[in-house]
Amino acid sequence: MNMKIGILGGGMVAQAIGGKLQALGHDVMIGIRNPDAGELEKPRNGGKPLKEWAATTGAKVGTLSATAAHGELLFNCTQGNGSIPALKSAGADAIGSKILVDVANPLDFSKGMPPSLLPEFAHGTSLGEEIQKLLPNARVVKAFNTIANAVMVDASLVPGDHDLLIAGNDAAAKAEVSALAKSFGWASIVDLGDIVGARSTEHLLPIWIRLWATSGSAMHNIKIVR
Amino acid sequence: MNMKIGILGGGMVAQAIGGKLQALGHDVMIGIRNPDAGELEKPRNGGKPLKEWAATTGAKVGTLSATAAHGELLFNCTQGNGSIPALKSAGADAIGSKILVDVANPLDFSKGMPPSLLPEFAHGTSLGEEIQKLLPNARVVKAFNTIANAVMVDASLVPGDHDLLIAGNDAAAKAEVSALAKSFGWASIVDLGDIVGARSTEHLLPIWIRLWATSGSAMHNIKIVR
Repeated sequence: MNMKIGILGGGMVAQAIGGKLQALGHDVMIGIRNPDAGELEKPRNGGKPLKEWAATTGAKVGTLSATAAHGELLFNCTQGNGSIPALKSAGADAIGSKILVDVANPLDFSKGMPPSLLPEFAHGTSLGEEIQKLLPNARVVKAFNTIANAVMVDASLVPGDHDLLIAGNDAAAKAEVSALAKSFGWASIVDLGDIVGARSTEHLLPIWIRLWATSGSAMHNIKIVR
Repeated sequence: MNMKIGILGGGMVAQAIGGKLQALGHDVMIGIRNPDAGELEKPRNGGKPLKEWAATTGAKVGTLSATAAHGELLFNCTQGNGSIPALKSAGADAIGSKILVDVANPLDFSKGMPPSLLPEFAHGTSLGEEIQKLLPNARVVKAFNTIANAVMVDASLVPGDHDLLIAGNDAAAKAEVSALAKSFGWASIVDLGDIVGARSTEHLLPIWIRLWATSGSAMHNIKIVR
């Protein structure tokens, strides 16, 4: 079923997910804080200038609030250290009770590489939980935050059997996100329970980064064995 | 090759590793802070009273410093929030340049369950790195800290192909620890590079705990897929 989908954030993760969804037939808008002409021509956090991205994909670009209003289902692809203000700018009214897939990771680059987790999201909470607290009516599903952006939308880039990890309070929302993930090629999806499970997937970033640093490739993931 | 091995700590992890090594023919001593008669009769952190454990296994029990002196190779199986003082008590002179396998996790139970990582070991460092800084001559190898104690010493308790993750600065030390791990049934060992890799394995505790909480079983591990 094709949907209107809003992607909050305009970097490489937003472009990978938004581009894939548009290619699959969905009606995608990417939202950034200031989508003015100059901003659309700048390269963005590992991605293309959004003017070029929109021309290539056929997707739209708008403000955060217009994107939240456009989507029947939303993705948070902002950087983790700016997700809370970006979601406030998108607006609780426009987000309402929609599914909000939280792909962000609360990484702290302020002390250099490798990044740590931001302390305010790493002890007794997580970014996913804080987003759910900020937007109690939204159906937050933490997902896709443990793999490279290319792998998020094409699971076959990592060979063999490996897992997409999801967590959230609403079973129907997780089922809908799982259906989207299957359209990206994900055969194995591990449900880590309610949104508290976001702690465990956000804590996977250090090993993801370490494997990247020691192997030179981002094309990896984990399989839960039990 | 049979060795004299010292296990710092007396809880269930120390008992599992010490008991297995003694059964494999090594000469094992477990060390705790105060191994007096009363202390040896108390149940210990998920394990047996050490008097009973020693009688069953044939291994010895002593002080932290006697155990550090006894072992040609040492394991840190103390609780993570007490590892630094326990290692100071064991003594840098007795530890010297021996291999020190760090199995501890810096878990913070002060805010209830599930535990978070202790902030002082979770941002820009790790417990493994802090132990290496405390004991610059020791050859610290972070290993075995990402699975249940029963699985540490019997990899076949988790079915199929799954990984033991190790990190440390000394390649020869990692090779020796890998040989011990093979004697515990580990077929696949992933080297995460120098001791900074300890950050990534200590950060796996939240997903280990989450899988335990959501499945009710501790018999699980991960496989790195790439």
